[in-house]
Amino acid sequence: MSRLKLSNRARNTPPSPIRKLAYLGYKAKKSGIYIYHLNIGQPDIETPQEFFEGLRLFRHKVVAYEQSQGNEELCSAWSKYINRTLELNTSPEQFLITVGASEALVFLFMTCCDPGDEVIIFDPTYANYLGFAAIAGVNLVPVLSKMDDNFALPPYEKIEQKITNRTRAILLCNPNNPTGTVYSREDLRSLYDLCEDNNIFLIIDETYREIVYDGLKPLSILNVVPDSKRVIVVDSLSKRFSLCGARIGCLLTCNEEVLATTLNIAQARLAAPTIDQFAAAHMLEHVKPDYLENVRNEFLGRRDALHEALKQIPGVVAHKPKGAFYSLVALPVHNVEDFASFMLSQFSYQGKTTFIAPAAGFYMQNEHGVRKARLAYVLNKSDLEAAVEVLAAGLTAYLKK
Amino acid sequence: MSRLKLSNRARNTPPSPIRKLAYLGYKAKKSGIYIYHLNIGQPDIETPQEFFEGLRLFRHKVVAYEQSQGNEELCSAWSKYINRTLELNTSPEQFLITVGASEALVFLFMTCCDPGDEVIIFDPTYANYLGFAAIAGVNLVPVLSKMDDNFALPPYEKIEQKITNRTRAILLCNPNNPTGTVYSREDLRSLYDLCEDNNIFLIIDETYREIVYDGLKPLSILNVVPDSKRVIVVDSLSKRFSLCGARIGCLLTCNEEVLATTLNIAQARLAAPTIDQFAAAHMLEHVKPDYLENVRNEFLGRRDALHEALKQIPGVVAHKPKGAFYSLVALPVHNVEDFASFMLSQFSYQGKTTFIAPAAGFYMQNEHGVRKARLAYVLNKSDLEAAVEVLAAGLTAYLKK
Repeated sequence: MSRLKLSNRARNTPPSPIRKLAYLGYKAKKSGIYIYHLNIGQPDIETPQEFFEGLRLFRHKVVAYEQSQGNEELCSAWSKYINRTLELNTSPEQFLITVGASEALVFLFMTCCDPGDEVIIFDPTYANYLGFAAIAGVNLVPVLSKMDDNFALPPYEKIEQKITNRTRAILLCNPNNPTGTVYSREDLRSLYDLCEDNNIFLIIDETYREIVYDGLKPLSILNVVPDSKRVIVVDSLSKRFSLCGARIGCLLTCNEEVLATTLNIAQARLAAPTIDQFAAAHMLEHVKPDYLENVRNEFLGRRDALHEALKQIPGVVAHKPKGAFYSLVALPVHNVEDFASFMLSQFSYQGKTTFIAPAAGFYMQNEHGVRKARLAYVLNKSDLEAAVEVLAAGLTAYLKK
Repeated sequence: MSRLKLSNRARNTPPSPIRKLAYLGYKAKKSGIYIYHLNIGQPDIETPQEFFEGLRLFRHKVVAYEQSQGNEELCSAWSKYINRTLELNTSPEQFLITVGASEALVFLFMTCCDPGDEVIIFDPTYANYLGFAAIAGVNLVPVLSKMDDNFALPPYEKIEQKITNRTRAILLCNPNNPTGTVYSREDLRSLYDLCEDNNIFLIIDETYREIVYDGLKPLSILNVVPDSKRVIVVDSLSKRFSLCGARIGCLLTCNEEVLATTLNIAQARLAAPTIDQFAAAHMLEHVKPDYLENVRNEFLGRRDALHEALKQIPGVVAHKPKGAFYSLVALPVHNVEDFASFMLSQFSYQGKTTFIAPAAGFYMQNEHGVRKARLAYVLNKSDLEAAVEVLAAGLTAYLKK
């Protein structure tokens, strides 16, 4: 049979850099090696009891379709949650529930952009944005933020230089994955002004909003610009409530045209999962206020433990984040992807190894990431310390090769 | 503020014809009217107990991401289920779990087609195929199947005439939504030969595979062509197990390149919901063999009851389906969409009304559907009979206007 050609876009969709070494990890595990996973943003913190309570309260005899725009109680609970935690005044009609923040971003790329249109992002960036852009046929245009500048927001002019007549939006992740940078009220205001001056959308991915340290408080773009039709917030329960597998995200905007048009796309996929939405609504209504406080404190302790441990390794330079739970770390090797593969396929230390994410995949301009890794501090402190010990041993072995 | 332009593709994405009257239905319900829903393929049959048992057995303390290709136990259980019910020999590695059949089809359009490429479908068609195509930038090319020909598969030559150098696949829904046609082994063989002769993919959506009547047995394309890299099956638990809201679908193929490339796209969206997959795996392993037999018999009884009742209405011509749970019905009105809106917004009979789906949205060549409706017989027999009684009264009132 002659070969069936697949599409160019499919062949050009980059494999997720976070997941592409998964097969090596799988093989290592099958061979009996214990793996410390610092490669993926999958927290080990327990999901709130109230979510499981919600699951048990689902008593319908038929698992029927939910509405395309989302479960009404969930929209209402999410709105109340945001109003309570951020002192805002959103209403449930401004929400569209999606299958994770991922789906919200794919929808927004489609709603805001025709194929070939451009969205400005900041490099390094959440790697899956590249996948969403490939799916939607959108060209991402990176503006570099630098490690020796603490990954600060680049100046207005540097960003504006990248705007063309095909630019449709700026997308910022705040707090940032993978850098952990938390952008200030002034940063957000400046970015909004830039969008206003150039008449484009501002999309803020606030997946990590509640996870901030060192006295910072959660800050939404809606605290800075509460009622602009230019602003779209993407939100998710995945990280702050350890609910990655429930796949519950949303988009939130007061732009009714964006909501109505995105709903047409959302109707084509029918609806997000019924039972997860039901349980999430129950959780948001009933979760204890100190849950997130404990989550924040736990991650703060881990961040500090990770950085103390990394300091002991010669040649390692780590960026200390102000939010989220990732740290970008420069390693004393020429190619971190090669080193990460080595850790999974040729190395173990007392039957254990450490899985790290090479940072090149988080940079559109890959060369800036070749010698860096992203470490997700999603394990408890003693596991983190052990993981870094294994990493240090791995580095020594790798450099001796 | 100057108006922010949305994308052409978003503005051109058709609202789902099944869902676009939803707002009128919502308003009718709020005003206290009871609605018989014949408009949407949401069965009222109870979901197997084994699914809820599976939910209760989920004991992890963290709702973590599932693998991008799907829960291993679910792939394995689904493979065994297919091998058992169809006497086939699939293996779990041939499966990719998706968020409903919807996501599988979007992925396949992206994997098989670049924007502007063509997929041949049969008119009338499942309306959401149009939405998936809009999302993926694919041009669907319809070949008409005719009601007075029992919606049979059009002849080889009629289909081949539509093949151009941009055609990448033929997509068939078997049993068919919205016609209820069940295609024979010979139909499938002929379609496969056509794909072979023209070197294109054959995608069969087998969502309704188990729901067939009048002595027919479930038949997969894999029973006809078990090991062609040209063939991709899309499957779903939604309809046969009353699990629409769990959003569990899959694609199944022995084409490793399709699986690997689609997995790149699937990785960008991370994973399908964890708990639903866990519960579905448990259900497929433990569901009683007579569950589907009972489902089939129940729908058979409903089909017959619906058709007996429709016969009593003057001017109504109904197509009696051999599978799925939809019937296309010609009504004695000039515009069924107008009539369907009337039923929801201006009519009630003893406090009740009937919600039907205008068929125009199921035809790419809309004119063929203007005087038809799709009725989903997803209610129990006495409700169905009552729904048709209300429909008849509505017709009388509408024609008197």
